[in-house]
Amino acid sequence: MTDLSKLVSSVEGSATLAITALVKKLKAEGKDVLSFSAGEPDFPTPKFIKEAAIQAINDNFTKYTANAGTPDLIAAIIAKFKNDNNLEYGSAEILVSSGAKQSIYNVLMAICNPGDEVIYQSPYWVSYPEMVKLVQGKSVVIDAGPESGYKITPAQLKAAITPKSKVFIFNSPSNPSGAAYTPEEIQALCAVLAETDIITISDEIYEKITFDGGQHYSPAQYPGLRDKTVVINGLSKAYSMTGWRVGYAAGPKYIIDVAANLQSHSTSNACSVSQKAATAALTGPTTDLEMMATKFQERRDLIIKGLSEIEGIKCPVPGGAFYAFFDVSLYYGKSFNNVSIKSSADMCTYLLAEENIGLVPGDAFGNDNCVRMSFACSDKNILEGLKRLKSGLEKLT
Amino acid sequence: MTDLSKLVSSVEGSATLAITALVKKLKAEGKDVLSFSAGEPDFPTPKFIKEAAIQAINDNFTKYTANAGTPDLIAAIIAKFKNDNNLEYGSAEILVSSGAKQSIYNVLMAICNPGDEVIYQSPYWVSYPEMVKLVQGKSVVIDAGPESGYKITPAQLKAAITPKSKVFIFNSPSNPSGAAYTPEEIQALCAVLAETDIITISDEIYEKITFDGGQHYSPAQYPGLRDKTVVINGLSKAYSMTGWRVGYAAGPKYIIDVAANLQSHSTSNACSVSQKAATAALTGPTTDLEMMATKFQERRDLIIKGLSEIEGIKCPVPGGAFYAFFDVSLYYGKSFNNVSIKSSADMCTYLLAEENIGLVPGDAFGNDNCVRMSFACSDKNILEGLKRLKSGLEKLT
Repeated sequence: MTDLSKLVSSVEGSATLAITALVKKLKAEGKDVLSFSAGEPDFPTPKFIKEAAIQAINDNFTKYTANAGTPDLIAAIIAKFKNDNNLEYGSAEILVSSGAKQSIYNVLMAICNPGDEVIYQSPYWVSYPEMVKLVQGKSVVIDAGPESGYKITPAQLKAAITPKSKVFIFNSPSNPSGAAYTPEEIQALCAVLAETDIITISDEIYEKITFDGGQHYSPAQYPGLRDKTVVINGLSKAYSMTGWRVGYAAGPKYIIDVAANLQSHSTSNACSVSQKAATAALTGPTTDLEMMATKFQERRDLIIKGLSEIEGIKCPVPGGAFYAFFDVSLYYGKSFNNVSIKSSADMCTYLLAEENIGLVPGDAFGNDNCVRMSFACSDKNILEGLKRLKSGLEKLT
Repeated sequence: MTDLSKLVSSVEGSATLAITALVKKLKAEGKDVLSFSAGEPDFPTPKFIKEAAIQAINDNFTKYTANAGTPDLIAAIIAKFKNDNNLEYGSAEILVSSGAKQSIYNVLMAICNPGDEVIYQSPYWVSYPEMVKLVQGKSVVIDAGPESGYKITPAQLKAAITPKSKVFIFNSPSNPSGAAYTPEEIQALCAVLAETDIITISDEIYEKITFDGGQHYSPAQYPGLRDKTVVINGLSKAYSMTGWRVGYAAGPKYIIDVAANLQSHSTSNACSVSQKAATAALTGPTTDLEMMATKFQERRDLIIKGLSEIEGIKCPVPGGAFYAFFDVSLYYGKSFNNVSIKSSADMCTYLLAEENIGLVPGDAFGNDNCVRMSFACSDKNILEGLKRLKSGLEKLT
């Protein structure tokens, strides 16, 4: 065997994918496993979007498109930013990619030099640390636990900044915590960023899934930050289009240009059919979108009520997305059948083996006291999952 | 403006894309431009493949798939290698990506450390040098001109090898030259490689477009090379599926694992609908495939005949793909309206301005004496293009 890339070999596999694979294996063995590891809506892609894709196929829209995206999709994205976020972008400031994950990867690759510091909070999305490794950057992680609702303060952000700070990755509403910063909270962070040359990468993929009338605010809207911010968004979560792989980045042309060049030599355009589907999604009716957000809020209420009835769990109320991220560390040190639970991985392994429920260890998201439970599933499964969780925790002594 | 990544900023935009954009601009201005820059078949995606994609959409097969590809697509790829190439792969040795371009990028990223030498020949596909830059490798380019049919010899390969040689990228049939090595020629190169630890990345994307009954041979078939070779292939060229973005890599598990990990944090799975389309393509009838290959051979004959009637052009007969790559350097030093033609870029700029035909400068492929003319277009356009080319060259004095 030849020595491979030290850098790329250092990247860790996704814990979410590992749990999903294990659950699938147990199901195949005939076990009655309930998975709460999903990072995608359980709804089908709305009908009018699927029809647009079928139309594209019938129209033979199956050739290469422009690397940065089709003109009509770029126009739809520009209109979305204008209408939803009061942000103005030119077409050279938009880059469509094969999913928002690629959008973030491209932009980080375009910006960072080895040794650059990339600031983000924990709990964080699993891919941030691995992407920072890939750009040979240094992760500077600001810790925010359940007691602060998984939100960082301007003072914490300020304290994390050094002369080497290059990028701040911000994600609200958040995967894994569901934390949704208020506009005022975001503006307070922006006031800190405005004093610096830091580029903010604002991952707004859960923008459309917010609860209790919570308002979305993009750091790019803050005076002076528009040209120091790259907004990341996509179709996967709001429109239940995870499999189609369409995401986009919007930001100053000099960054988008470099990211687009990278894309032109690493993947080129996102799937042409998916781009037509995405165009339909962004320009079509919002009924499905609202239905899904409402449904997620009802489930959020259901899961929070259930969790509040289990002793020793700490779970701030998620303001968006479709995850409950809760602290189970009061159970650490307890045992079942002489096996002691010492970490989120131990807890998830135990709950899967004993109660047949698949949760994701918080360790993967930078908080080993917690586990993530997705509520992108039916009320019935949520209720059964809560029952099993309670049973499992009560068995620990 | 913040300093961006020195590495990624050093990547050059694609010359092919630049010409395509310029042609589009001129067309929009009302000019009667004929473009011969296309890197994709002009046929629609075959009907049975489109139907499979529509079925997938109707079945709501629009969620995340496994990162490395759906089990049925991986099974179809394994069967393809067995049937077409007599190669046996396990499912953990296959990685499906968003196009063969991404397959090559992922594999190069997985293998190379800074300073590693990557050997390939010129004329080369435009993205090879840029990808080598991105992995911080060093390109070692072996020159092969029209006099050798754009093919390198075992002696040339041997001379290029140093203790730092890590990867040999091989591409037959070739973009841009259409050169198709015979099995014997490939085996002679393999005999050199077999003595070394070099990993061969064999880009076989044009496998199905070969002429005159030419046989395809993969370096992975050579005794001892199977586990030192990663085969790259995809659906784009053979099945006219460029826009769908499905490619794949097959090779030893320890390389595929690292490449898959990179993919899991940079893009994740290829479009789910496209994967279903790809599965249908690989397991369906080969009628369309054969029809397209036959048509390309007829056009190859047409273009070669026409080029042979233009004085001073040197063009070896393409054995595959859909490009004629010919030497026009006998015209260098001549002028039109006092503007002297000194390079392939000058020549293409002149021919576009004066004769309204879009060719791609050979410089982009590592041979500044040549230009590339795609014959993925109608006979009528080929004949008109040849007429304009002849007229343009005759005007030079």
